[in-house]
Amino acid sequence: MDAAGFIRRKRAGDAHTEGALRDFVVAAVAGTVPEYQLTAWLMAVMFNGLSVEETVALTRAFVYSGRRLSWPAELEPTVDKHSTGGVGDKVSLLLLPWLAATGVRMPKMSGRGLGHTGGTIDKLESIPGFRVNLEERELLAQLRDVGCADIAQSTDLVPADKLFYALRDATDTVERVELIVASVVSKKIAAGASCIVLDVKCGAGAFFPDIDAARAFAVLARKVAAAFDRRCSCVISAMDEPLGWAVGNALEVQEALQALRGIAFPADLIEVCATLGAVALVDCGMEADVHSGRQVMLKAFESGAVWERAQRWIAAQGGSLSGFAERLETLRDYRRIELWAESQGVVQRVEPRLIGELVRSLGGGRLRAGATIDPLVGVVCHAKVDAACNAGDLLATAYASAGDSRSDSEIRNALAAAYSLGSEKADPAAVVLEVLQAG
Amino acid sequence: MDAAGFIRRKRAGDAHTEGALRDFVVAAVAGTVPEYQLTAWLMAVMFNGLSVEETVALTRAFVYSGRRLSWPAELEPTVDKHSTGGVGDKVSLLLLPWLAATGVRMPKMSGRGLGHTGGTIDKLESIPGFRVNLEERELLAQLRDVGCADIAQSTDLVPADKLFYALRDATDTVERVELIVASVVSKKIAAGASCIVLDVKCGAGAFFPDIDAARAFAVLARKVAAAFDRRCSCVISAMDEPLGWAVGNALEVQEALQALRGIAFPADLIEVCATLGAVALVDCGMEADVHSGRQVMLKAFESGAVWERAQRWIAAQGGSLSGFAERLETLRDYRRIELWAESQGVVQRVEPRLIGELVRSLGGGRLRAGATIDPLVGVVCHAKVDAACNAGDLLATAYASAGDSRSDSEIRNALAAAYSLGSEKADPAAVVLEVLQAG
Repeated sequence: MDAAGFIRRKRAGDAHTEGALRDFVVAAVAGTVPEYQLTAWLMAVMFNGLSVEETVALTRAFVYSGRRLSWPAELEPTVDKHSTGGVGDKVSLLLLPWLAATGVRMPKMSGRGLGHTGGTIDKLESIPGFRVNLEERELLAQLRDVGCADIAQSTDLVPADKLFYALRDATDTVERVELIVASVVSKKIAAGASCIVLDVKCGAGAFFPDIDAARAFAVLARKVAAAFDRRCSCVISAMDEPLGWAVGNALEVQEALQALRGIAFPADLIEVCATLGAVALVDCGMEADVHSGRQVMLKAFESGAVWERAQRWIAAQGGSLSGFAERLETLRDYRRIELWAESQGVVQRVEPRLIGELVRSLGGGRLRAGATIDPLVGVVCHAKVDAACNAGDLLATAYASAGDSRSDSEIRNALAAAYSLGSEKADPAAVVLEVLQAG
Repeated sequence: MDAAGFIRRKRAGDAHTEGALRDFVVAAVAGTVPEYQLTAWLMAVMFNGLSVEETVALTRAFVYSGRRLSWPAELEPTVDKHSTGGVGDKVSLLLLPWLAATGVRMPKMSGRGLGHTGGTIDKLESIPGFRVNLEERELLAQLRDVGCADIAQSTDLVPADKLFYALRDATDTVERVELIVASVVSKKIAAGASCIVLDVKCGAGAFFPDIDAARAFAVLARKVAAAFDRRCSCVISAMDEPLGWAVGNALEVQEALQALRGIAFPADLIEVCATLGAVALVDCGMEADVHSGRQVMLKAFESGAVWERAQRWIAAQGGSLSGFAERLETLRDYRRIELWAESQGVVQRVEPRLIGELVRSLGGGRLRAGATIDPLVGVVCHAKVDAACNAGDLLATAYASAGDSRSDSEIRNALAAAYSLGSEKADPAAVVLEVLQAG
């Protein structure tokens, strides 16, 4: 492998062959191409990009760098779901039992939280007993019996992406759509489901700042997935305020459980889930269009079938809902910091990144992989954008551990920084901005 | 040091502060910024460049990464010389005793050959007994008594450049003028001479392919040197055929000695030396202009003072000219492969890169630092561009070791590939293309 020559091609703006990209990734994973050549190439890609063909080839090289799963034919249709990350994003907690209740199998692998966004595995682990590592036979049995499973990302899937991602993070070579697509899609291809739905979030709390960036990702992701004969649809959803009300691991599980039980209705959260489910049903060939898919989703929800499925799912993975209720009781020992409206007004903005960073700083997330988290801390946003409030109304509550070094007023100030009130009616954007169905 | 943020600035096209560049270089040399971040930054520089101020700051950070030499006032004027590298480039062998004979002190450090170009240290080491490492007191005494010295590049000068250069070589981040200038000028600043002359070679056998690239280097090098209060002049010289006749370590020393003795006259070599010497005399304030400087240089040469100085120099560093003559005798045991003209014609081209690569492949150079070389192998180009020849005339001779695995005809074919003959008169470009004097 002439790595310097490979780098030279990309710096000069020439295209790589599929074979050269494969050799480069193989050598990188084997360590025969050193990391300093890898990052020089990544930076050249930041400037000169990759063609669709090169992105497919890079994705394929990623997929073949590790183990590839496949599911028995009797489990079809199988659907996988991925979110590009947001604040208060508990979509998977609802969507897995929900789609399972409509007859789809959802074998999902999830990650942990990093930075200002959370991870589904951290959320599920706030349920006492919940096992995020299953033996293969347990996983297959659960998919057969319950229809869904969510386990921690296997370390032997797409090792190339782990290597590349860690280096991209350290070298400002993250924000190039071809590299993001190769990273996301390779993991979904290796995980083996035949249909893929991507929740592409955009806005202040998301990786993609605007709809153009989100759309560029969605368009390329669908093209690359198609090269692997996978149906891939994308839902572009707004992340200009936290999704739903709660941010924090146990608080988000609580919100999801209340929504599944029908005793709370976080409208934006339900809308994102119903839309993702609808496009999945279309991709699986179970529904003709998104409209009818949506009807099927909402009907399943109202029937109680989804809540029944959720209980079976959590129990199958060893989680105890009574244990979870007991754990939530211990929130009484936490400091409770409330933010009240100082005058009459309408909520104009709830900055998702500030809320996400506050929750992380309270101990609910991590800056470094492997750091310990406190599942109970978090924030509940009682008032969302466009809520009208009077002076003294409760806007948000933060739960901090007794040992947190900051004073209540410091934490309250952090909450207040995320909220803007005004006199005008605020116009919250629709949460689902665009749907790009598999071709 | 937030290296990722530092990389981000350059990727975004923003300028670095002097402090940030210094911190980055310090951390890189200390190893706290890993090489994979260094190369990502280098690649961002390939695309977004450095301003003159940034290049000065990078050069300064390089200079301060190691030991800095300074010369006692009584040794002034001191002149250092650097060549950007060519084939058959034995300029230093002549220029050191030549300028010393005019009253200038030349404390020079040189490198070894790598790739298709040679290094002065390899050439000097072909003289039996020649010591390329001197104690500091020996060096000072020699500068006082003889006026010149050439020693192997000290490892504690500009360690940052060593680190950066090795990584640039492996990541296709060599060819950016700001990085080249920082590398070259930092070493000259750290070596302490008050005047610097740069032999900037351009053409088929040089690092700079054309005069525009060479001029861009020269202009920036002078600006950066000026920021350190050094006078720096540049001579842009052609490298479209080997300089002089011989290519190979001992063969080049032999050619230089014959020129110094006045028994051979390689016109292009003499012209480059006289011009470099003339600008140095102007920069030192010893001559008013290049024309009078050139007269002084040529007069010293004709007087025999330069040859006398050369003998004292070689003896001072332990070299034995009789030992060298004996070593050259052993060339009789080498294979001698001759290339003759097949028909009447005029030499149109002598490809310097092909000659340089042939000499390296014969064992006269190295692909990897530290490899052993054979000082005696090489090529003598009897016919240079524009030479008229008849069928059967000798064009070039290669000297190969008896153990070389290639047949005579293979080596002859390699020689032949470098030569083009035609019927038209060839127009060799002037060897000195442009002189840029210190401002």
